[in-house]
Amino acid sequence: MAKQHPPMYAVIMAGGSGTRLWPKSRKKKPKQLLDIVSSKTMIQETVERLSPLIDGNHTFIVVGRMHFEYINEQLVHVPTENILVEPEGKNTAPCIGLAAIHIRARDKDAVMVVLPSDHLIRNDARFRKTLRASTEVAQSGNHLVTIGIQPTFPETGYGYIQIGKKVDTVHGEDVFKVVAFKEKPSLAVAKKFLKSGNYMWNSGMFVWKATAILEQIKIHLPDLYRGLLQIETAIGEDDENKVVDEVYASLKPESIDFGVMERAEDVLFLKGDFGWNDIGSWAAMEQIWPKDRDGNFLHAEVVSIESTGNIIHSTKKLVAVIGLKDIVIIETDDALLVCPKERAPDVRRVVDELKKRGLDSYL
Amino acid sequence: MAKQHPPMYAVIMAGGSGTRLWPKSRKKKPKQLLDIVSSKTMIQETVERLSPLIDGNHTFIVVGRMHFEYINEQLVHVPTENILVEPEGKNTAPCIGLAAIHIRARDKDAVMVVLPSDHLIRNDARFRKTLRASTEVAQSGNHLVTIGIQPTFPETGYGYIQIGKKVDTVHGEDVFKVVAFKEKPSLAVAKKFLKSGNYMWNSGMFVWKATAILEQIKIHLPDLYRGLLQIETAIGEDDENKVVDEVYASLKPESIDFGVMERAEDVLFLKGDFGWNDIGSWAAMEQIWPKDRDGNFLHAEVVSIESTGNIIHSTKKLVAVIGLKDIVIIETDDALLVCPKERAPDVRRVVDELKKRGLDSYL
Repeated sequence: MAKQHPPMYAVIMAGGSGTRLWPKSRKKKPKQLLDIVSSKTMIQETVERLSPLIDGNHTFIVVGRMHFEYINEQLVHVPTENILVEPEGKNTAPCIGLAAIHIRARDKDAVMVVLPSDHLIRNDARFRKTLRASTEVAQSGNHLVTIGIQPTFPETGYGYIQIGKKVDTVHGEDVFKVVAFKEKPSLAVAKKFLKSGNYMWNSGMFVWKATAILEQIKIHLPDLYRGLLQIETAIGEDDENKVVDEVYASLKPESIDFGVMERAEDVLFLKGDFGWNDIGSWAAMEQIWPKDRDGNFLHAEVVSIESTGNIIHSTKKLVAVIGLKDIVIIETDDALLVCPKERAPDVRRVVDELKKRGLDSYL
Repeated sequence: MAKQHPPMYAVIMAGGSGTRLWPKSRKKKPKQLLDIVSSKTMIQETVERLSPLIDGNHTFIVVGRMHFEYINEQLVHVPTENILVEPEGKNTAPCIGLAAIHIRARDKDAVMVVLPSDHLIRNDARFRKTLRASTEVAQSGNHLVTIGIQPTFPETGYGYIQIGKKVDTVHGEDVFKVVAFKEKPSLAVAKKFLKSGNYMWNSGMFVWKATAILEQIKIHLPDLYRGLLQIETAIGEDDENKVVDEVYASLKPESIDFGVMERAEDVLFLKGDFGWNDIGSWAAMEQIWPKDRDGNFLHAEVVSIESTGNIIHSTKKLVAVIGLKDIVIIETDDALLVCPKERAPDVRRVVDELKKRGLDSYL
């Protein structure tokens, strides 16, 4: 294959152990390994969505040890050596740093696209168009580019990005200065953000040169940078795993957003308008699963009597509902969740309770 | 065993194919064969509740062909020849008539206690006391005795019995004349019934001499009586089943209430005050299953977060509920029902829909 110009690499962060889709998502099978959107797992979808732009040899996956084997088997077009194992989760800064040193070792000019492994994107072509424009922007200097989403409601579960003046237009995509990264707001603040029009949802997608992000890590997270250099010298050596383990044991958890992006000066923003959804809870399924005549969102065989707005998943059972409205019903081989749609994000409290009771087999 | 005075017999009507507890109750396993109240099936509970008063040799069970084998196995203290098979359900009059001719053939003086097989009775001792008093009343003449229940709310799903003046007190139990049997009322009428104090729920429990009920059947349902005589001559003969089949094929469905009781003159009433519940829908389970701290009624392993008043059954799965109120959740090996408590009686509409769709395996 001819070398791409600029040389694009993907980094797919698959270390999450999300509990928000319990009882489907489990420690051993987090959201990125679920096939809730299509017959493919979400991480497969993510890799395939990129493939017209970035092939498997240029795709890196960062995973937890527990999921290495399964992901390695699933992603047949990604070479095993591109699947990087984190011995423990330390948030996104170490994850991205680890991938960056591997990519810089391959190609000093590489531009890397950093993506979560468990988000839904409906319009793949639009998505790749935004990535292409972002890559061109990133390539043109040492900018850190972030792709965010125009909010449609005052979501309090996301961080926000405050954008400033427009600085450019690349391939028809407007490029803005970033003013600040904002942590998850209160509802009142989220409403203000929505009204102002200058605050975008932080979707955790970034584009930059590997050298550029490492330079910023060096400045803002020097401990992490020293650790990454230690790992760099061990790449391909017999003691690589041992070094990675030791370095990770010493690292403080740190997000890229607040460890680097919030402190860096040259941060730019492109708006992602490609049908993004992070599937933050079962309530999101009403945008994904087919709707029946009564307005229920079904991934199951269902008999519904005077019921509407329900979100129902069961692979093996007939589900009958009568006079039921806006209820989530999720059935797996060993567990059943039932709650109103608006309470779906609270499923983490069920997971907490299971931990407390020592019901580990359900985690 | 010494002969009982009066010679008491029980007739337990187990022909029901109730759908009201779907998805647990099925054609092959109707309510009387479910173990939802205790570890025993409801028909086992019914037989055992009687046993201090009427032993298995004096107990007759009337069943559908489909359930004969299972019931015969379950009721080890009831001889096989006491399990009478109806080739098809023709409502209660033929069922009771069939039992009556068998009992009369055994003992011309027999008093028979007729009971449904699928009702809950909490106070067994009080129940037997009422049966003893009823039997003494029935024995004293040719009275048809019915045991009804003091209504506690304007139920529209039951028939009512209008009672008249008190005619006697036997073993501390008041005996009333029956004025009329009333079909299932509208809510407005049910409210009037409740207020008047003279209308009792018809629980389908009767006590009478076998000869007395057969005499009344002869008068009010002569076709049925002729059929019963044909069967009587065939009892114990090679062609017994054939005769029963032929007779049943010719019979009109008829309830004992409207075929006989409503027309008979000498009908008396005793009040049953023994914690009766016909378990007409899953909503009744809140009077049976243990209540957790939050006021949920559970027959399952449950993690409940801010949830109250729910009725939950699952034998194999962990059920998690969040912010859920007054919802019925019933899980079986192949089906799941979720509905508000007040809609539980509408489960028959699910069954109708399953029939319509040809989903026979769920019936």
